[in-house]
Amino acid sequence: MAESMNGLHRSHRCTEVSSQDIGETVTVMGWVQKRRNLGALIFIDLRDRSGILQVVFDENSVGKEGFEKAGTLRSEYVIAVTGKVQQRAAAVNENLKTGDIEVIAEQIRILSEAETPPFPIEENSQTKDEVRLKYRYLDLRRPDIQKNLMLRSKVIYLMREFMMKEGFLEIETPILCKSTPEGARDYLVPSRVHPGNFYALPQSPQLYKQLLMCSGYDRYFQIAKCFRDEDLRADRQPEFTQADMELSFVDIDDVLDVNERLLKYIFKEAIGVDVQIPLQRMPWQEAMDRFGSDKPDTRFGMELHDVSEVVKGCGFGVFTGALEQGGSVRGINAKGQGSMPRKKIDKLVEFAKGYGAKGLAYLSINEDGTYKSSFAKFMTEDELKALVDALDGEAGDLLLFAADKNKIVWNVLGALRLEIAKELDLLDPNQYNFLWVTEFPLLEWSDEENRYMAMHHPFTMPMEEDWENVDTDPGSVRAKAYDIVLNGTELGGGSVRIHQDDIQEKMFEVLGFTKESAHEQFGFLLDAFKYGVPPHAGLAYGVDRMVMHMVHADSIRDVIAFPKVKDASCLMTEAPGKVDEKQLEELQLKIEEE
Amino acid sequence: MAESMNGLHRSHRCTEVSSQDIGETVTVMGWVQKRRNLGALIFIDLRDRSGILQVVFDENSVGKEGFEKAGTLRSEYVIAVTGKVQQRAAAVNENLKTGDIEVIAEQIRILSEAETPPFPIEENSQTKDEVRLKYRYLDLRRPDIQKNLMLRSKVIYLMREFMMKEGFLEIETPILCKSTPEGARDYLVPSRVHPGNFYALPQSPQLYKQLLMCSGYDRYFQIAKCFRDEDLRADRQPEFTQADMELSFVDIDDVLDVNERLLKYIFKEAIGVDVQIPLQRMPWQEAMDRFGSDKPDTRFGMELHDVSEVVKGCGFGVFTGALEQGGSVRGINAKGQGSMPRKKIDKLVEFAKGYGAKGLAYLSINEDGTYKSSFAKFMTEDELKALVDALDGEAGDLLLFAADKNKIVWNVLGALRLEIAKELDLLDPNQYNFLWVTEFPLLEWSDEENRYMAMHHPFTMPMEEDWENVDTDPGSVRAKAYDIVLNGTELGGGSVRIHQDDIQEKMFEVLGFTKESAHEQFGFLLDAFKYGVPPHAGLAYGVDRMVMHMVHADSIRDVIAFPKVKDASCLMTEAPGKVDEKQLEELQLKIEEE
Repeated sequence: MAESMNGLHRSHRCTEVSSQDIGETVTVMGWVQKRRNLGALIFIDLRDRSGILQVVFDENSVGKEGFEKAGTLRSEYVIAVTGKVQQRAAAVNENLKTGDIEVIAEQIRILSEAETPPFPIEENSQTKDEVRLKYRYLDLRRPDIQKNLMLRSKVIYLMREFMMKEGFLEIETPILCKSTPEGARDYLVPSRVHPGNFYALPQSPQLYKQLLMCSGYDRYFQIAKCFRDEDLRADRQPEFTQADMELSFVDIDDVLDVNERLLKYIFKEAIGVDVQIPLQRMPWQEAMDRFGSDKPDTRFGMELHDVSEVVKGCGFGVFTGALEQGGSVRGINAKGQGSMPRKKIDKLVEFAKGYGAKGLAYLSINEDGTYKSSFAKFMTEDELKALVDALDGEAGDLLLFAADKNKIVWNVLGALRLEIAKELDLLDPNQYNFLWVTEFPLLEWSDEENRYMAMHHPFTMPMEEDWENVDTDPGSVRAKAYDIVLNGTELGGGSVRIHQDDIQEKMFEVLGFTKESAHEQFGFLLDAFKYGVPPHAGLAYGVDRMVMHMVHADSIRDVIAFPKVKDASCLMTEAPGKVDEKQLEELQLKIEEE
Repeated sequence: MAESMNGLHRSHRCTEVSSQDIGETVTVMGWVQKRRNLGALIFIDLRDRSGILQVVFDENSVGKEGFEKAGTLRSEYVIAVTGKVQQRAAAVNENLKTGDIEVIAEQIRILSEAETPPFPIEENSQTKDEVRLKYRYLDLRRPDIQKNLMLRSKVIYLMREFMMKEGFLEIETPILCKSTPEGARDYLVPSRVHPGNFYALPQSPQLYKQLLMCSGYDRYFQIAKCFRDEDLRADRQPEFTQADMELSFVDIDDVLDVNERLLKYIFKEAIGVDVQIPLQRMPWQEAMDRFGSDKPDTRFGMELHDVSEVVKGCGFGVFTGALEQGGSVRGINAKGQGSMPRKKIDKLVEFAKGYGAKGLAYLSINEDGTYKSSFAKFMTEDELKALVDALDGEAGDLLLFAADKNKIVWNVLGALRLEIAKELDLLDPNQYNFLWVTEFPLLEWSDEENRYMAMHHPFTMPMEEDWENVDTDPGSVRAKAYDIVLNGTELGGGSVRIHQDDIQEKMFEVLGFTKESAHEQFGFLLDAFKYGVPPHAGLAYGVDRMVMHMVHADSIRDVIAFPKVKDASCLMTEAPGKVDEKQLEELQLKIEEE
């Protein structure tokens, strides 16, 4: 039988009680973590979101009825206890914040009984994901998840606090939007008032925030829900949270500056990490050349080396063939891994193939200075020496080479570098290496579409000094775009936007738009630009991802209260579900059975 | 031709420049509000979100080229000006914050030219709503709308600031939810991965926030987007914003207390209004009896009086008939309106009929003490005198009476009271009268469903002292529910929730649920309640409505950046719209043509 709260007032959360309160009477409420009967005493670990407090029931203090009640307590019962705080009679429990005290119960109410939960409420649960997510309301009781969500709440508040101080306005943009044909797949919402017509859930507030700049709001931000009906991948959520901003009357330095200060502030206040600013800025080309990635993890070296010049004209056809195709040969040096067994190397080769490599050439330098290599026989001693020197190879090192189109070589070696670092435990989770990747290519050639595509979006500003080459060498034009990278993860990105008619028109031309097709897709934005548009730029962060990094979560589901699983369903509510025929009739929709 | 921002840095927003800066060089950027040529000088009113600043172009200062450029400026051009601040040469403009200064331009860049906008950018626009909303990006430039949205941004930040200090966690709940059969109509989102199945957009995070209490988060809040596909009404938006909270281990007083302090804080900080707390609490019955409304506007009197006892047995069949049907006769006294012309009274009668009245009885007290009345002839002099006395009628007053079922009488007189107050200009917009309406009926009889329905929702806690009557007199049971009312508007509402199995089970029984049907609808919440649920309570505010009150907006559209119109469409983006056949195929949906 559940008792009522009538007349009861909680005085403290569990771990708000401390040795300062010894001798005081407190009222605490929470869940029974566990009960132990010890001689004539009953001990309860009482849990709330703040942590654990020990409560002791002694019949002399709590009375006969109270003591009997305490005897019925089981895990997850919700109780309220009033009692005196005292020094803990037994040894101090160093693992608990309240380990030096306990509360001697004088009154107890059972606010709610509880059935035995399907899995224990404890940190680092070994319970299967499916069960945890079905009973998410119990899973959410686990202290580690609670810590994650409490930190998340703090982080988004810190963001807002900083942004408000910097003169940003939080402005809500619609969730019921217009569907646009380009980009990822939209979630659609059928209209009842306009049957046969649909809203789309926003993939980002991009167009709205640019409109707000046209409207003179000057500095906008929003913690915005975004939606993408993308193909399934383990750690992707159909809805995700973006910290979105846009600024008027700025150039790239202004945006980077305010964001560096934002990051410094929230990482310090949320998790006590000192971010040194200004952050490093690395042009995209350098990031690819050195790390094979536009989101380099700079916590360790093992950088890529372009050895195309060195192997040019060597006898190894795989190398020279790649060069002839306009590609490159590059390598990394896995220091001290020269004695890696063949089996493990084979695994790396397989790994590389997963990233598009046709193979992986390796060379290990034995302690006696001789080489063991998959391709040594095709090359002269001098050629091998030059190759080893190019990678600063020393006795005991393992050199790995990929030869292919640049894109594949970068991709393969970038991934390999990370894989080896993981295996060798080179990734310190407590080191936070931020950097900006800048000067992205404006355009990307698409074989599929047989045309250049915008790497970011069609409103991204080209770099002034490159723009004159847009006709002769479109691929060489760099953009005023930037990504913020943390430990190999892209936390966010953005760009300066085009605000000049002539550049925008040319950009659409390069992207193969006609005047009509540009207008069809971006009509209201282009219209807005006609009436006086300020120079503007913006950036958006993936909030889920940022919080994941802060709490070292393995899964995005550990930082979202009610996540969906791989097939975009919710195991707890069983959404999506069937709806009434009447609802579909109102929408004038019919389900087509396959 | 648009010039670039290269090397330019804004030093101030327009009205951040003040007489303190006289002699200093500043760089300001914004939109040209207007240009005047005056002799050898050109004057520009430069506008940004902060306000207006006067810029003067003198060829001696800005040079020939700059002066010529200034001569080409037209409304809504975006420019950057660098120049010296000086005391205004002409008379001070008292209407402007910067009315005592001006900037003598030394450099100008035209950042963007502008076509002539379809309507002038000015406060209190007389432009048709349809045009304003089509060009919403221009409408949003109007200083009054900008002030609204800036205040809105501030209000939601103040809310968050307060809530964080009070130990609330902001936790995001899903937008892609499960459709539930009861309540208002859901917006549906077809699932591509599970064809034939649908998500629903949330009407509120109600179930999620109760689950979070089960999960031990103790204090939750969220500024949440909610959605209802309701029938069309002028000032209703398909998506709206709710400030939503839930608290564990509390009773009604705790919830009211924290919310009173919240309201006091935000009204003071946002608009400088002192809210005296604790607020008045008025039981629902009293609100209906005195004001004919569960959201009484207490800025003026003209209260309802129940005269059923007085007219019992009188000769006026309309009165006695209503009493015989179990109804009542009530009146209001429109002080000093005794000389209201018959035509105007007839209008009030028509107005009353619009609220369900069959008619409206009136009696005006002439200055000589005689009566003019629609029903005097049916009553004795003594009866009339008693009636007048019951309403404290004096010479020059107009008494209006309704006789019907209570619900209709309240409805009619409540509306009439407001209507007359509006006409007499009794509603001071700068007076903020808050009150709690409490002790709502738990259940409401539905003729349509032929059963009792939950007035709030099925989880609302009954008042302990009434609960024993639930079988004998269900209608008399009051709930631990509360609404916060401001000047006749319901700003928000909530309730203490049932956390006891036995009460919840009984409640479902009273509402006509079977065990199965209750489980079908609320399964996961009921499951969650099995594993230990804390006493909890919550409240939600309508943010749009609250901000409307703060800025005295006439329309909800004036406090939402991108609102929809009555048919739930967006005139700017033309959402909702058609989508590709391919998209529908992927969803296995077909549109049924009518």
